Amino acid sequence: MSLPLNPQFRLAARPVGLPKTTDWAYVTEPAREPDDGEVLVEVAYLSLDPAMRGWMNEGKSYVPPVKIGAVMRALGVGAVIASRAQGFAPGDAVSGLLGIQAYATLKAAELTKIDLELAPFPVYLNVLGMTGMTAYFGLLDVGTPATGETVVVSGAAGAVGATVGQIAKIKGCRVVGIAGGPEKCAFLTGELGFDAAVDYKGGDVYGRLKSACPAGIDVYFDNVGGEILDICLALINLRARIVICGAISQYNATGPVKGPANYLSLLVNRARMQGMIVFDYADRYGLAAREMAGWMAAGKLVGREDVVAGLETFPDTLLKLFSGENFGKLLLKVR
Amino acid sequence: MSLPLNPQFRLAARPVGLPKTTDWAYVTEPAREPDDGEVLVEVAYLSLDPAMRGWMNEGKSYVPPVKIGAVMRALGVGAVIASRAQGFAPGDAVSGLLGIQAYATLKAAELTKIDLELAPFPVYLNVLGMTGMTAYFGLLDVGTPATGETVVVSGAAGAVGATVGQIAKIKGCRVVGIAGGPEKCAFLTGELGFDAAVDYKGGDVYGRLKSACPAGIDVYFDNVGGEILDICLALINLRARIVICGAISQYNATGPVKGPANYLSLLVNRARMQGMIVFDYADRYGLAAREMAGWMAAGKLVGREDVVAGLETFPDTLLKLFSGENFGKLLLKVR
Repeated sequence: MSLPLNPQFRLAARPVGLPKTTDWAYVTEPAREPDDGEVLVEVAYLSLDPAMRGWMNEGKSYVPPVKIGAVMRALGVGAVIASRAQGFAPGDAVSGLLGIQAYATLKAAELTKIDLELAPFPVYLNVLGMTGMTAYFGLLDVGTPATGETVVVSGAAGAVGATVGQIAKIKGCRVVGIAGGPEKCAFLTGELGFDAAVDYKGGDVYGRLKSACPAGIDVYFDNVGGEILDICLALINLRARIVICGAISQYNATGPVKGPANYLSLLVNRARMQGMIVFDYADRYGLAAREMAGWMAAGKLVGREDVVAGLETFPDTLLKLFSGENFGKLLLKVR
Repeated sequence: MSLPLNPQFRLAARPVGLPKTTDWAYVTEPAREPDDGEVLVEVAYLSLDPAMRGWMNEGKSYVPPVKIGAVMRALGVGAVIASRAQGFAPGDAVSGLLGIQAYATLKAAELTKIDLELAPFPVYLNVLGMTGMTAYFGLLDVGTPATGETVVVSGAAGAVGATVGQIAKIKGCRVVGIAGGPEKCAFLTGELGFDAAVDYKGGDVYGRLKSACPAGIDVYFDNVGGEILDICLALINLRARIVICGAISQYNATGPVKGPANYLSLLVNRARMQGMIVFDYADRYGLAAREMAGWMAAGKLVGREDVVAGLETFPDTLLKLFSGENFGKLLLKVR
């Protein structure tokens, strides 16, 4: 077969602080022909996620670091254009760890088929993908909110945060989002039905969050870490649950991570702070996706994607995650 | 009745950093005659606990702060010498929040009768008292150790820590204690049967704790906070449990509390960090005390008390808790 050219971003250096242009090598070479059991996928969209920053660091984590010289790891969706695997044919839509490139050759076992009649490509990287799964299991399994409880979520206009808040509303909670800027806050209370939103750029976050949570905080879903985690710790109720999903404020720190100075609030309030990684729930993805698709169909759950076109924009587009500039699920449109 | 003179320590000022002599007022006045439903107790022993430092601060906590001018709150044991309450007679041995004083007049409902034929006074402030209950429920209910898991406890030669480690041994865990100085460490591995002990004053705590926990840490029972909490966070296993029982390294901090910079290890390891307060388990104290008395009778659980004689030594004796000087349960012998 004739193989298309495959532009791709490889990790050239481990970043210190924010990833720089020179941390990447933009390389174009022919796509690799599939071996037995493999398929060749034309990448349609790639998911840009805060977790990618961690994957670029050396050292033990929940997944191995991306090797220097390797194509940058990323979730993506696309269409099979050649297959040497049973059950996969050209035209099939799939999702998986496609990497920051235009074409991916992978084992079919590493891919999941998706149904474009049910939802278009971007939704499979947002509400029906790892983002939605993270929100669903992080909130429901780790946060365990009860009807009438107050749920606070940070990074609330981000992909995970927006979904967390909407699921919490579906479960009958009072929902308060923390986001940057009046536009995002208006989106949360307007389009997404949050009960209140606090602009963390607007000063006195403690005072305004306290006013927004007159009965205190029962569940705090943390995507950001840093000062906002400390403020929420100061406002938690007895037996509160803090879900540690991310800490985007700390991912590019070149000094030590800021630990939560108010952690003794866990003791005073017999509260717990617990980390979660979505992969642990893989055996229940299907169930969760069906439930969330139902909520979407019923208009109770809305996904918002922030789509940037052009694989070549990747280094700059990724930085939108860390500047707080993106609004909704950040996707790279490749094709 | 003729009332005895009652020397007592009242809180004179809220301490900044370590409590100073001038934070106390040593006052002697006649004991108060019991009203209906009250008893007069001659105090035998008082329990000196790290938590007392927190009670001296202003501000919301799990119990109200001790008021300026009030007798300092403290657990104690003693004998009833006068009673106007049904079911209490002179000679009865009791425990309760007697306060730092020689005689206490309290409602009988606030006291628990204890049996001196089962164990002498000091044991009711140690293994069979709040100390033992804290260790028992903190380890078993919050830490939930399984046979074969590695349990690390800090402040291990202290009253709670020593009991935690011994209960973990009874439950079939590998137990590693962190304590200050070779004498305490030898006590842990020698008399108490810990598998290993790490002297936190001996340098390279991370390296030595890592060697002592070749299979990582499954449960960390934290009495100290600060750097040791961070070191343990760096060594935890998947789904580890961290019990936040205290943070003695931070109680006298005049600057901000040092938050655990390695808290994102909770995320990577899907681990949890949870606070506990013993009072939540009051309805199960009796069951726990019976089980622990059985372990003591069988020689599996040993209590060690560090008894200092003289109510008047209170201000200095209390400081032994924070200097790391005390060894075992610190008690003040009043009578």
